[in-house]
Amino acid sequence: MLTDNLKKKLNKTFTSKNVLSSIEERYAYSVDALNSDIKENLSDAIVFVRSIEDVQNAVKIANQTSTPLICRGAGTNTVGACVPVHGGIILNFSKMNKILEINTQNMTARVQPGVVLGDLQKEVEKLGLFYPPDPSNLKVSTIGGSIALNSAGARCFKYGATKDYILDMLVVTSDGKLIRTGSNTIKNATGYNLGSLFIGSEGTLGIVVEATLKLIPKPQSNQVIMAYFDEIESSISSVDKIISKKLFPSTIDFMDKNALSTVEQFYPTGLLTDKKAALIIEVDGEELSVNKQREEICAILRESLATNIQYSTNKDEAEHIWTARRSSMAACARLKPNVTTDDIIVPRNNLSKLVEGIQNICKHHNLITCLVGHVGDGSVHPQIPIDFNDKKEYKEYKLAKSEIYRLAINLGGTISGEHGIGLEKRPYIAQVVEGGALDYMRQIKKLFDPKNILNPYKIF
Amino acid sequence: MLTDNLKKKLNKTFTSKNVLSSIEERYAYSVDALNSDIKENLSDAIVFVRSIEDVQNAVKIANQTSTPLICRGAGTNTVGACVPVHGGIILNFSKMNKILEINTQNMTARVQPGVVLGDLQKEVEKLGLFYPPDPSNLKVSTIGGSIALNSAGARCFKYGATKDYILDMLVVTSDGKLIRTGSNTIKNATGYNLGSLFIGSEGTLGIVVEATLKLIPKPQSNQVIMAYFDEIESSISSVDKIISKKLFPSTIDFMDKNALSTVEQFYPTGLLTDKKAALIIEVDGEELSVNKQREEICAILRESLATNIQYSTNKDEAEHIWTARRSSMAACARLKPNVTTDDIIVPRNNLSKLVEGIQNICKHHNLITCLVGHVGDGSVHPQIPIDFNDKKEYKEYKLAKSEIYRLAINLGGTISGEHGIGLEKRPYIAQVVEGGALDYMRQIKKLFDPKNILNPYKIF
Repeated sequence: MLTDNLKKKLNKTFTSKNVLSSIEERYAYSVDALNSDIKENLSDAIVFVRSIEDVQNAVKIANQTSTPLICRGAGTNTVGACVPVHGGIILNFSKMNKILEINTQNMTARVQPGVVLGDLQKEVEKLGLFYPPDPSNLKVSTIGGSIALNSAGARCFKYGATKDYILDMLVVTSDGKLIRTGSNTIKNATGYNLGSLFIGSEGTLGIVVEATLKLIPKPQSNQVIMAYFDEIESSISSVDKIISKKLFPSTIDFMDKNALSTVEQFYPTGLLTDKKAALIIEVDGEELSVNKQREEICAILRESLATNIQYSTNKDEAEHIWTARRSSMAACARLKPNVTTDDIIVPRNNLSKLVEGIQNICKHHNLITCLVGHVGDGSVHPQIPIDFNDKKEYKEYKLAKSEIYRLAINLGGTISGEHGIGLEKRPYIAQVVEGGALDYMRQIKKLFDPKNILNPYKIF
Repeated sequence: MLTDNLKKKLNKTFTSKNVLSSIEERYAYSVDALNSDIKENLSDAIVFVRSIEDVQNAVKIANQTSTPLICRGAGTNTVGACVPVHGGIILNFSKMNKILEINTQNMTARVQPGVVLGDLQKEVEKLGLFYPPDPSNLKVSTIGGSIALNSAGARCFKYGATKDYILDMLVVTSDGKLIRTGSNTIKNATGYNLGSLFIGSEGTLGIVVEATLKLIPKPQSNQVIMAYFDEIESSISSVDKIISKKLFPSTIDFMDKNALSTVEQFYPTGLLTDKKAALIIEVDGEELSVNKQREEICAILRESLATNIQYSTNKDEAEHIWTARRSSMAACARLKPNVTTDDIIVPRNNLSKLVEGIQNICKHHNLITCLVGHVGDGSVHPQIPIDFNDKKEYKEYKLAKSEIYRLAINLGGTISGEHGIGLEKRPYIAQVVEGGALDYMRQIKKLFDPKNILNPYKIF
């Protein structure tokens, strides 16, 4: 609660321009990109941290006043991981946004958590290097957020997720100490992998204040293929054929009929709206090889009954295809007052069952759904436009959601591949993490945050 | 201690062929591939486990009798991680060696921990798939061991280490429960990354009894280049030039003059023994691209004053080059009664300082050293032939070792990149893991193994 005591302490420790505490500002920071009907939260205050010392001071005040701390980068996460459930201080990292070092020889970058992912990628690419993780919101989302959620994205198929690119971190612990989790080397086998515990922990175990990232050489060239299908099944089975030919595209993404037509309705780019599915496949590498891969993949797609196969011949054309794919959420948002996105993943051999299952569940509950996803990974993002004020529709949505999770679990999958648990999926985590493992997770939380000050009410 | 009570319990629970307890057998299992002067250890008994239930029963007996449990695959680790410091039951996993499933569609393999790494690789490659981690001992070492030590190898430069390929594990905990750490999906963002805590924990937190591995498409083609240099500096600076041209070889390995001449002395393959250094660079990918990459790399090597550049034109020639590189340890072992290997890593921009520093330290202490390593990663393995019975030489060796660690730390590196800490490097861990982080590691150990039954006296 924003008591006089807390207010006094914040104002004494931070300059006034770095503390927000008007009721409007506190409301503005009561939500993140989770679209839900949760309306009861109100942050106590917002602190723009500008240094490690600032973070340590905030932790001190949080301990003295028993106030939760909720770290926030761009607030783009979709599971409510930045929501101050029963109040708390929002630590805003947007001013700790310096790229401290890019070392071309070591292929590493040392960054503050508020660095925008897309900005970092541009900078390292200028130097011929590459930081692969590419969540759709990379133009605004931050490194700190992507560490907290272990973000992945389309290129995860070939290049892995955030966890595969974090070498070292400085973390402020719940008692205000600063610890180092790894080493500034490509490999490190000196004790337990503490760093990996913080990655994906949604700010519940410690506060990442600096990270050293592993970079790789930037692929010399890339091309994007878009192919349409009259059947979902054939789009997905073509992926197996591509892999069985030892081809290794950097992305294999998917849009269903609804996604195609909704995007085309609001952001027309010439998508074929009468098709059941489309695949967006990017290949990268040495230039000669890119052409060869593209040719081989196009041949496989034709065999798999793909129609209207297009491919990019320059950067703008590639961007054009990706923009259509990435506009899906924004397009969906125009169909109804609200839109929700989800994040389901199954072993790829069950993917067509998942896609058709989700479509059927939504149909049964009278919901529109646009399906996009990183199908190479078995990952699907159902985007459901909805009116939260329509009680009946909301009830149907809740039922559909549970059924979709149940379906994913029955197909050997899980309820989050890359978006996390946050507030939104807490009620479901026990369905996918077994009791014994969940119990250890709770004990780890207690070990690192005995007073439950760091982003409480999240994950479990 | 092998009390009558322990003996009775073991014989009651396991069939006699699965329990070894003669004094000769107990001595045989008192060591692993750590070459040291440690002679005081004696295992209490050896149990060949054949099922998850066997492991759980062994844990039960260990708890009842307060006997340590030390898991063992092939015993190839070089840091004494399998040494029963004050006795204990050796759990031998060599009979739990089934590949339970290779799923080509999901690109996953489900394996028991005793599967030999090289055997798994052969099987998945038959199906067009690829499991990259390649420690030099892969023909005998096991998956379980490589998980315990987070093994890497030459291909880590492009493909990462074991931790990047473990999706899910079944783990028997110190109280005998069976927990699942992840999900059978390519990505998973449901709570803390428990799995990563067990990977590299050297059997001190839990016992891995099954693992689901991520596979990738097998590269269509590969070639190995070997190039010699008259100066170490120019060999290492050529690596920067390769990367700055956006080339991404799968391995960049190194041998120094002593390594070249020692290998040639005992396993002659035509190495040039008058050269100061050699690089072994493998490129892989689509066939056209492999030729192109090799041409570009050879041009860079020539610019960097490399001489006698050779490259493989078929699989046998590639194998021939790697055999020379991998024979270094065996060759060294023929120079003196004993041989030690170490595992130092620094940021690559300090690599030539490390290599020259190690050579100088060893020279100063009158020690021979053969240097090999994965220089793309900044990783060096000094191999030192020695006679442990020569008190003076042993003293010099101990001094040299400390100085090498100090040098690595001063150059921003650490004392293990891929071999682990085990028993051997315990005295040094506090030099590279800061107090706060080490303290959390100790608390994690307490959380997972409150009775200190799982591989005690290791890491810290």
